[in-house]
Amino acid sequence: MLSFRVRTLGIDSGKPIVVLTEDDAADLGVKSSSRVRVKSSRGEITAIVNIATKTLSNGTIGVFDEVRRILKLRDNDRVDVGVAPFPSSLQFIRNRLLGRKLNYDEIHEIVKDVVEGNLRETEIASFVTSLHMQGVDLDEATSLTNAMVETGHILKIKKRPVVDKHSIGGVPGDKTSLLLVPVLAAAGCTIPKSSSRAITSAAGTADKAEVLMPVNLGIEEITKVVQKTNGCLVWGGSLELAPADDIFVQIEFPLSIDPLLLPSIMSKKRAANVDNLVIDIPTGTRTKIKTIEEANLLAKDFIELGRRVNIKTQCTITSGEQPIGYAVGPALEAREALEILMRRKVVPEQIDKVCHIAGALLEMVGRNDGYDIAIQILKSGKAEKKMREIISQQGGNPNVTPEDIEVGEYTFDASSENAGNLLWIDNNGLVEVARAAGAPKDKEAGVLLHKKLGERVRKGESLFTIYSAKSRKMEMARKLLEEVRVCGVAEKGEMLIQRVREIPVPKKAFILER
Amino acid sequence: MLSFRVRTLGIDSGKPIVVLTEDDAADLGVKSSSRVRVKSSRGEITAIVNIATKTLSNGTIGVFDEVRRILKLRDNDRVDVGVAPFPSSLQFIRNRLLGRKLNYDEIHEIVKDVVEGNLRETEIASFVTSLHMQGVDLDEATSLTNAMVETGHILKIKKRPVVDKHSIGGVPGDKTSLLLVPVLAAAGCTIPKSSSRAITSAAGTADKAEVLMPVNLGIEEITKVVQKTNGCLVWGGSLELAPADDIFVQIEFPLSIDPLLLPSIMSKKRAANVDNLVIDIPTGTRTKIKTIEEANLLAKDFIELGRRVNIKTQCTITSGEQPIGYAVGPALEAREALEILMRRKVVPEQIDKVCHIAGALLEMVGRNDGYDIAIQILKSGKAEKKMREIISQQGGNPNVTPEDIEVGEYTFDASSENAGNLLWIDNNGLVEVARAAGAPKDKEAGVLLHKKLGERVRKGESLFTIYSAKSRKMEMARKLLEEVRVCGVAEKGEMLIQRVREIPVPKKAFILER
Repeated sequence: MLSFRVRTLGIDSGKPIVVLTEDDAADLGVKSSSRVRVKSSRGEITAIVNIATKTLSNGTIGVFDEVRRILKLRDNDRVDVGVAPFPSSLQFIRNRLLGRKLNYDEIHEIVKDVVEGNLRETEIASFVTSLHMQGVDLDEATSLTNAMVETGHILKIKKRPVVDKHSIGGVPGDKTSLLLVPVLAAAGCTIPKSSSRAITSAAGTADKAEVLMPVNLGIEEITKVVQKTNGCLVWGGSLELAPADDIFVQIEFPLSIDPLLLPSIMSKKRAANVDNLVIDIPTGTRTKIKTIEEANLLAKDFIELGRRVNIKTQCTITSGEQPIGYAVGPALEAREALEILMRRKVVPEQIDKVCHIAGALLEMVGRNDGYDIAIQILKSGKAEKKMREIISQQGGNPNVTPEDIEVGEYTFDASSENAGNLLWIDNNGLVEVARAAGAPKDKEAGVLLHKKLGERVRKGESLFTIYSAKSRKMEMARKLLEEVRVCGVAEKGEMLIQRVREIPVPKKAFILER
Repeated sequence: MLSFRVRTLGIDSGKPIVVLTEDDAADLGVKSSSRVRVKSSRGEITAIVNIATKTLSNGTIGVFDEVRRILKLRDNDRVDVGVAPFPSSLQFIRNRLLGRKLNYDEIHEIVKDVVEGNLRETEIASFVTSLHMQGVDLDEATSLTNAMVETGHILKIKKRPVVDKHSIGGVPGDKTSLLLVPVLAAAGCTIPKSSSRAITSAAGTADKAEVLMPVNLGIEEITKVVQKTNGCLVWGGSLELAPADDIFVQIEFPLSIDPLLLPSIMSKKRAANVDNLVIDIPTGTRTKIKTIEEANLLAKDFIELGRRVNIKTQCTITSGEQPIGYAVGPALEAREALEILMRRKVVPEQIDKVCHIAGALLEMVGRNDGYDIAIQILKSGKAEKKMREIISQQGGNPNVTPEDIEVGEYTFDASSENAGNLLWIDNNGLVEVARAAGAPKDKEAGVLLHKKLGERVRKGESLFTIYSAKSRKMEMARKLLEEVRVCGVAEKGEMLIQRVREIPVPKKAFILER
């Protein structure tokens, strides 16, 4: 251990990095990319070494923002620095690479070191890849779930039982959570819903809810809102519930792999103290889960994993053949959800989906005829009233109307080149268009469908309207539309799905949303 | 593309990194860890984005050393920056993760993007892990070899045929290359030997040769030396022969995996224009390759891969049960090699190994009785004369004597606790001790054995001497000696190898040297 004077560098790389002079690094016996342990009076952290080639003098250590933040450092503070010990978790990863299944203690050590920054990103990538290549069995999934819960915060809600729903995603326009929370809260269930922002989709539930109210609440604020209203609709990202997952996702996303699907979802629910859970599995040829058989296998694993981590779990396999409702994009979806709650717009498939999931949860906590209770709550306006309570408690405008919600001023109508029936909608293609138009970052951006599957389309009739807040982005969406076929309009009886003339290039689209 | 004013930051992270203000990053549509394409009048490069939280103003881009070096930037130069295009190689890696074998074009694209910095380290780690988990077949090995050659420099030697030897390593004290080069050069063969420095061993061939002469030569200097003397002994690290391999090794090493063993070796040889190659496979219970069967399978793969990439290849399976000769560590080994060349010291196993490998290569290029030719060249002093020519041409002292070579001033004798026969030597343990004493960084550090397998040892007799240049490091080596049993001394007939009382902790030691 050597002592250094701190110099904050004001660079945020998302990783803990310190900068040493070449002499000091040699003295410590480290080089660029080595890991060192940095100790201050306020804590300690493992950081990656970079080498200063100018501006730093011997005896001074440059610290990037993450190190500064965690150790609460200021310029001229002193820290002790030594070579980081070899993490035993790395040995466990090596064993996994040799084909060994890992036990709970080993997995806990790995997850802990992921969260604490003691493993290199390449080492985490290799671990995740080994899980993907060899598969994660239910023993490992259980260990991963528990370890991810134990290395993060826990949401403590006094009211029990707590119910929750999660969709593994893949179908655009799904407003289920925005409707389910007020329905179940109005029915007397406790549902502290935390959601993610979009990763690959056009709008995450948190993005949609944020159009109606603040969603960036702390754990204490959430507890208060739930105590008062039975429910909430918040962003889970900053709550540090199962924070390891957030690190895994960063690595998995570019690789298009998702071996931690089950532990990821179940750990977040366990950390939120959920007792009864419905996992929704949208299934269809153009979404994430393609076949009913595959959906059933996944459901079986969720139910068994739930049993092992003490969450009563059921699954709904729902139609994912086309977007749910008409709106895709944060503002458009929030508006459609509000219209449904206010009984201004009838979207039968969206209402059916909400009532099936709400019904299942109501029956799981001992109520009869769950579906009917749910539909009654929606129809009577109790769900709308409850939603306005939640909006108010989270700091939004409880009197918000659909007209208050702004959508993109630039619009473009995509019209059909021929007459026929709408035979298919490419969910991924539609999402790509909405994202090109600015969603989810620009909340006003998105797509509004005018036709759903099976409907008759005239030549030149508008299939959907693209909304964008910026002309440049609208241009990009229009350009994309020239390359990607989003809707298939043809006469019934046309059989060809695709003609393969050359080696097909796999699509870039990958649905990570869980 | 936006234009930025350059500010050099003087930080070397081993990776191309640029720093942008949060505003500028948002304008570009990137965030921390995103990849951007940076163009100057002198070239372009893909770099990783970090975010400035102080000291940088909008319109200014901070550049780390690698970016500065490659684009030859100075403060206040201007560069254009845009989002890096999605690398198609990443799609090929994703396909590999789905279990698809890759064809040559796909592998070439991946290797090119590895060299050019267009892939994230996590993506490379995932690729390497998939190769490890699923194995690399000979088709992929061939593609990898050719792609790694084509993305690097080529050593052009006019004299043909070119012969070379490579050991897959794992046995300490192996001075074969130091002796083989002068023997074959004296026999009229062309042998432009480039070697690596130690990664996990106590001394790489380049570390040993550097005790006798400069080894950090450029491609033109090497060509000159070889033109004059038929041979050379240089460090291959800065020659950029198959540079992708150097990047793969950095990632593989902490993970203890080596899926690229064959392509790595063969690409370096192909890039050096080698026509005839002997791969040495040391085999023994305490080295890298444990069984003769395993060695034969590996040999078969090397020979077939050689055929495919147009290098005539044979293998020697040699005893790796114990160190070769007595010296382990750069200076000690260089001294022992010089003593053998000068016929001052007889190390029968080292001479036998050199003559078998030299003999095989001589016979591959059409000579008869290769072993006898080699031993004659060694005994006659022609090898010594040739070595001094090479030392002179590379800029070393041609009159160097063993006494000129300095070894560590701090010494410690490890003596036997009991009487008996030396039944085993733990190669890895011995290397760990030599490394603790300072090898390979401190050239004077190492271990000198006094006993070899089967020899009689008295109680208290010295088994080996540790040499170190620093008292602190000698202390560490002595401490390690208390934990690690390096030599097994027992009466013949003692049968127990190990008694397993609890779950064994796998050893940290991993031999990456190829």
